[in-house]
Amino acid sequence: MSDSGIRMGNEFDLIKKIQQKISGINRNHSALIVPPGDDAALLSSLVRPVITTDCQRQNVHFRLDWQSPEEIGFKAAVVTLSDLAASYAQPVCLFVNLTIPEGISELTLLQLYDGLCEALTLYPCALGGGNISSGSELSLDLFAMGEGSSLLFPLRSKALLGQGLYVTGPLGLARAGLDALERGLTDVPDLIRFFKRPRPRFDAADILLKKHISCVMDISDGLAGDAHHLAEASNIAIRFEIQTSFMPDILKEYCQRFNLSPLEMTLAGGEDYELLFTCEESVFQTINKDLPGAFKVGTCLEFQGTRILNPPLSAHSFVHTVGD
Amino acid sequence: MSDSGIRMGNEFDLIKKIQQKISGINRNHSALIVPPGDDAALLSSLVRPVITTDCQRQNVHFRLDWQSPEEIGFKAAVVTLSDLAASYAQPVCLFVNLTIPEGISELTLLQLYDGLCEALTLYPCALGGGNISSGSELSLDLFAMGEGSSLLFPLRSKALLGQGLYVTGPLGLARAGLDALERGLTDVPDLIRFFKRPRPRFDAADILLKKHISCVMDISDGLAGDAHHLAEASNIAIRFEIQTSFMPDILKEYCQRFNLSPLEMTLAGGEDYELLFTCEESVFQTINKDLPGAFKVGTCLEFQGTRILNPPLSAHSFVHTVGD
Repeated sequence: MSDSGIRMGNEFDLIKKIQQKISGINRNHSALIVPPGDDAALLSSLVRPVITTDCQRQNVHFRLDWQSPEEIGFKAAVVTLSDLAASYAQPVCLFVNLTIPEGISELTLLQLYDGLCEALTLYPCALGGGNISSGSELSLDLFAMGEGSSLLFPLRSKALLGQGLYVTGPLGLARAGLDALERGLTDVPDLIRFFKRPRPRFDAADILLKKHISCVMDISDGLAGDAHHLAEASNIAIRFEIQTSFMPDILKEYCQRFNLSPLEMTLAGGEDYELLFTCEESVFQTINKDLPGAFKVGTCLEFQGTRILNPPLSAHSFVHTVGD
Repeated sequence: MSDSGIRMGNEFDLIKKIQQKISGINRNHSALIVPPGDDAALLSSLVRPVITTDCQRQNVHFRLDWQSPEEIGFKAAVVTLSDLAASYAQPVCLFVNLTIPEGISELTLLQLYDGLCEALTLYPCALGGGNISSGSELSLDLFAMGEGSSLLFPLRSKALLGQGLYVTGPLGLARAGLDALERGLTDVPDLIRFFKRPRPRFDAADILLKKHISCVMDISDGLAGDAHHLAEASNIAIRFEIQTSFMPDILKEYCQRFNLSPLEMTLAGGEDYELLFTCEESVFQTINKDLPGAFKVGTCLEFQGTRILNPPLSAHSFVHTVGD
């Protein structure tokens, strides 16, 4: 926990209060041998250190008038941990750099840490320190370390021709929740919850790992965009095949109400944090027994100049801009 | 290397160009088993993972009209690695989250990475990926991993009564360099260089480690402030004893020119990144043979209600605000 940069009279008080919260969450973890407070933290040995970084910025990823500080902290931790889930890694320790605009209250910041701590209790992980500095907008930069599986490290580049492309659960719900927030709706709390409180699919990752699925990534930008990344990394093409029967009723109803396309929400909506993976159809059948919410979204075909063979006309990758 | 958040038409092109630079620097490192490009990176085993985070924000830590993109990138890496040096850890891998304001050129960002790569060539360390997102100001959030020493992990809390307080080299020079930039001077490039191109004292750390010095931290905020942190962590008090003979002539001359106090520069100036440590006088004598630039700045005394027994009246910890 460094203290540089911040121009507040009471920054060291704040750091002490944050350190108290951190020591609370870390009581159940042995990962942090030397906790925040020195120039660096010392962790227990890591056989296969898995590292991911993420960020959540005010008016880009969240809005203070839409989300409580706890919700912002919770989601910031979860979206970072999701990358560990997609890498078959168990969370070890999360570090957070905080950028604080002038005028923000200490209570808001402590509530932000309450949200972080809630997520790290639900998905057990130690909380390291981080830098606190001033800036024009509230911002969290997150660094997560995990312990990778001894069995395999999944990659985007492992898709094979003829394999199916699958997801572990429903898509488009977070995008619909964001749409509802943009419209100022209050009667669809379930949808808004998908946007505010995504879950990292460690449970689904466990099942995929047991089946030795080697091509996995999480869907943060939207199926269309992320499938494109996967196709590029694997040097294949993808043909989307999405059955409307797999779209949740809550999504279809919402889209009907506002004349939106549920297919577009499914393809372009981001932040669902479901896992995207490829495997043979027969392997999927056995996975599907343990993951009844999983479904097929496409097929891996030979690349002949086009990555996505049937791109929906208006679908584009979800851009994280909630500010306008 | 995630791609969320950024609202530029060519963000994936930029990411690819950055990945090329990253793969260049990583050719000499075996630390990154799975390099940037997937949801997470996979590193080689770490026996004693040492983690530190830092940040460099536009108009808080740097100014684009004062520093070239290369200089900003170089310093960002170095100030982060300095915490590893102060923890007796060897650099393993640096991850960087980048916040990009609208209108910044791709060339500027690539030059920023040139500076990062220069530092990581000079102080060998792999370069992991990181998140790129849009924001109102250019900002780097850095996350460094090192391999700790098997001998000991130094702490701020290990100072003992009666020990001397020492630094590994001259202080105040970076502050004088910043002052020169603020005055728009061009005739003191050597001073400005101390502000722009600090060095992490891995060389000094090696010497301190060999002598089993257990209380170490780097001086980023300024001697007065950092000594206070050390005193608090060790529950001691500190009496400053700084001989003007240890102040560099270049600092004294600059202070004389502008009627500044070299003592104040020494105590309050930050960003020198020298190491602050405590030990017995006899041990220091042997260290001093290998580190002729090291000198005494104080003594560790019993805490009786005041951490710093002789605080210079006007000295205050350096606040990282270069923007006003």
